[in-house]
Amino acid sequence: MRWINFTTAGTTAYGILEGDTVIETRGDIFSIWEKTGRTHRLADVKIEIPVMPRTFYCAGLNYVAHVKEAAEKVGTSPNIPARAEIGYRAQNALIAHGEDVVIPRDATEKVHYEGELVVIIGKKAKNLSEADALSCVFGYTIGNDVSERTWQKADRTFFRSKNTDTFKPMGPWIETEVDLAKLHTNVRLNGEIRTSFPTNDMLFSIQHFIHVTSQYCTLHPGDVMWMGTDGSSPDLKHGDLVEVEITGIGTLRNRFVREA
Amino acid sequence: MRWINFTTAGTTAYGILEGDTVIETRGDIFSIWEKTGRTHRLADVKIEIPVMPRTFYCAGLNYVAHVKEAAEKVGTSPNIPARAEIGYRAQNALIAHGEDVVIPRDATEKVHYEGELVVIIGKKAKNLSEADALSCVFGYTIGNDVSERTWQKADRTFFRSKNTDTFKPMGPWIETEVDLAKLHTNVRLNGEIRTSFPTNDMLFSIQHFIHVTSQYCTLHPGDVMWMGTDGSSPDLKHGDLVEVEITGIGTLRNRFVREA
Repeated sequence: MRWINFTTAGTTAYGILEGDTVIETRGDIFSIWEKTGRTHRLADVKIEIPVMPRTFYCAGLNYVAHVKEAAEKVGTSPNIPARAEIGYRAQNALIAHGEDVVIPRDATEKVHYEGELVVIIGKKAKNLSEADALSCVFGYTIGNDVSERTWQKADRTFFRSKNTDTFKPMGPWIETEVDLAKLHTNVRLNGEIRTSFPTNDMLFSIQHFIHVTSQYCTLHPGDVMWMGTDGSSPDLKHGDLVEVEITGIGTLRNRFVREA
Repeated sequence: MRWINFTTAGTTAYGILEGDTVIETRGDIFSIWEKTGRTHRLADVKIEIPVMPRTFYCAGLNYVAHVKEAAEKVGTSPNIPARAEIGYRAQNALIAHGEDVVIPRDATEKVHYEGELVVIIGKKAKNLSEADALSCVFGYTIGNDVSERTWQKADRTFFRSKNTDTFKPMGPWIETEVDLAKLHTNVRLNGEIRTSFPTNDMLFSIQHFIHVTSQYCTLHPGDVMWMGTDGSSPDLKHGDLVEVEITGIGTLRNRFVREA
């Protein structure tokens, strides 16, 4: 099932997406909801951020090739994480499918995409075993962990390298039925595949990250966990169109524009 | 004016605190609200977290003595930040005044308090100058940035050292009229002052942090910015009562208990 958060005629709601039809619902998608009887054509609605997370978790370095290539680019030695320690991103940076990533005037040319699988938590959970970890998962969406590498190297925190407004596109919708083993991520730049990897080929699995994180942190409905990326990105320029496709989920599409 | 978020008879609401009387309100404290006509005695209500932040900002190292003492304790050289780069904490860890900080079973004895001034953002804001920075501030409360130093040193992220459930007490209420220059922070352990410093004696001022952060990140009503701490903390044990007092705002009181 696909959940879409959308706006039409000034009202924002969740709907179930079937083909190109949005079946509008009311209530709480994580607990009790019902259909309103209204439907819309997908082309007629504005797609919104799938969910504003309470806590915005991010795995960071979670694919071996990405760690090596990232280290090479900033001139340090690769530091493969020894343990699954979750990190964070900031809510202000989120934008929806179709919205522009705005590169600040003072950013360098080193602006990169990172196509990521995003886990949406659906149930309050603490102390989950790896075997039970996926029981708290509501569904999956796609994220683009846009990064300014010069700031990432120079700054003490990620506040502007990764959390500048618009640097966290997420969407287009939430897919609840996913076979993790079959997912494949393709990142296209202006229509051409530039990065491609088996999505679940992670250093630490989703189950392991949920298990470890939930030993200390209660997960809540609407929390998101971005699972990291593989490979690397070319430098992105004004006008570039970046599409992150994860097979079985969809395609997250955003144009990059440089602030005037 | 003091805003208090409270629960009574199963209902959570905001009220205005005058002396020991809570004057109940309805609406949005950041825009349009009104009094309901109901009042409660402070002693009769459960105090809640003042606000669940959308983005949870934290200045981290922002007082010179703390940076030096913290470095000494983990055996590294002091690294005084050269620029005001904001960091983050996680929403799951927040608890209210009066609730217990639960030290996990596997934590070491190196559990410390950090008494901090907390800025509550009241208006959407971007690109604020230092001169205009405080125009987006709704008020101030108090935070205790509880930290497990062994994990803080060993881990790649702060997920358990600083963001374990209950490690972020915040409250007891929001004070909107504050003279920053006059504030003084006293942290008491079991009734005895152990840390004391002029609250506004920061490396980078609130105005400067808001100015720099807002160049890249839009601030939203309900966002919080924790401003860091001075001095250091003894190791905290099961049963310890920690009170963070900031003169003119109030006292945040939480007992520390070790998980059974």
